[in-house]
Amino acid sequence: MTQIPQAAFIHEVDQLKAIKRQLRLPHDEERQENSAEHSWHVALSALMLADYAEQSVDISRVITMILIHDLVEIDAGDMFAFAGAADHAEQELKELAAAKRIFGLLPAEQGQHYLKLWLEFEAAETNDARFAKAMDRVLPVFQNMQNQGGSWARHKVSQQQILDRNTELQTCAPKLWDYVNEQTSLAVAKGWLKS
Amino acid sequence: MTQIPQAAFIHEVDQLKAIKRQLRLPHDEERQENSAEHSWHVALSALMLADYAEQSVDISRVITMILIHDLVEIDAGDMFAFAGAADHAEQELKELAAAKRIFGLLPAEQGQHYLKLWLEFEAAETNDARFAKAMDRVLPVFQNMQNQGGSWARHKVSQQQILDRNTELQTCAPKLWDYVNEQTSLAVAKGWLKS
Repeated sequence: MTQIPQAAFIHEVDQLKAIKRQLRLPHDEERQENSAEHSWHVALSALMLADYAEQSVDISRVITMILIHDLVEIDAGDMFAFAGAADHAEQELKELAAAKRIFGLLPAEQGQHYLKLWLEFEAAETNDARFAKAMDRVLPVFQNMQNQGGSWARHKVSQQQILDRNTELQTCAPKLWDYVNEQTSLAVAKGWLKS
Repeated sequence: MTQIPQAAFIHEVDQLKAIKRQLRLPHDEERQENSAEHSWHVALSALMLADYAEQSVDISRVITMILIHDLVEIDAGDMFAFAGAADHAEQELKELAAAKRIFGLLPAEQGQHYLKLWLEFEAAETNDARFAKAMDRVLPVFQNMQNQGGSWARHKVSQQQILDRNTELQTCAPKLWDYVNEQTSLAVAKGWLKS
């Protein structure tokens, strides 16, 4: 029998489709967005917004990071962006263990390659990782603005929280930073974000 | 106000999350898979299976094609792979109109670039497009084999239909072709596919 050693990984990642995020989808009966379709949307948005990157990025590496960045949620679950610091620290440990397990399903060399790439994304120190992470964080701004404040309004999020979360854009993609500033001010005026 | 001309496109594509496919998800209460999370899964699988490509492919172009390939379903809907030929011809016209409208939401030059890439995917003549399309078609083989035949069993699909649909693999990724042959024979033995 022909063996495809990647098959276990391909099967495993199917589970990301069951990981629910706080964001709800206006086009699909307000069901919660899952992390697989979110990853697709971030990847596609990053492609379309690549020219806004201030530093040179390898968009192929950016897209790859985005496609894999949420896989750890299969074990660790999704944490709402504005949970407390202690929760985030515990989550980081869970996510590292998850990354080792899930990329460990791949042939050794391939698994190591993607584990390293995931760690690079998490550290957010290279241009590619910083841009990838910025895309992951800015997409909900587009989505919530289109959806009367969406998850912000429900969770009583403030403008400052959104700006803090997107602060990387200042150096990473300044025009998008301006956009986020203006859009979140608009959201405050509309009562979708706390001032 | 800062304008981000890609915003309309980023908002529009959110709708792909509401397009349902025939395949059901065992990890999420057997709900139907949608085309956005499917696109993510195909892109990630293509990354992991890139080394099986017999001809040289530019995996970055392959992934980009995969990320955009189903967007036309926002207007045209998803058609089950084994619908009749007349249905497929009508669907092609709808999809072309959809591609023009949806990529037309982007700035002109960018929109033209992605429309061309989508047309290249549809034509399936270049190595990149053939591999991208082969990945789109082989992923449900992995999924249905993991799910007791899944959508095959429900729709009384035959082994020959799956082989015909994946025939590009013979030249595109011969080891995956062998795998599909063996797996579908196994599926016949288990009663998941008609012989």
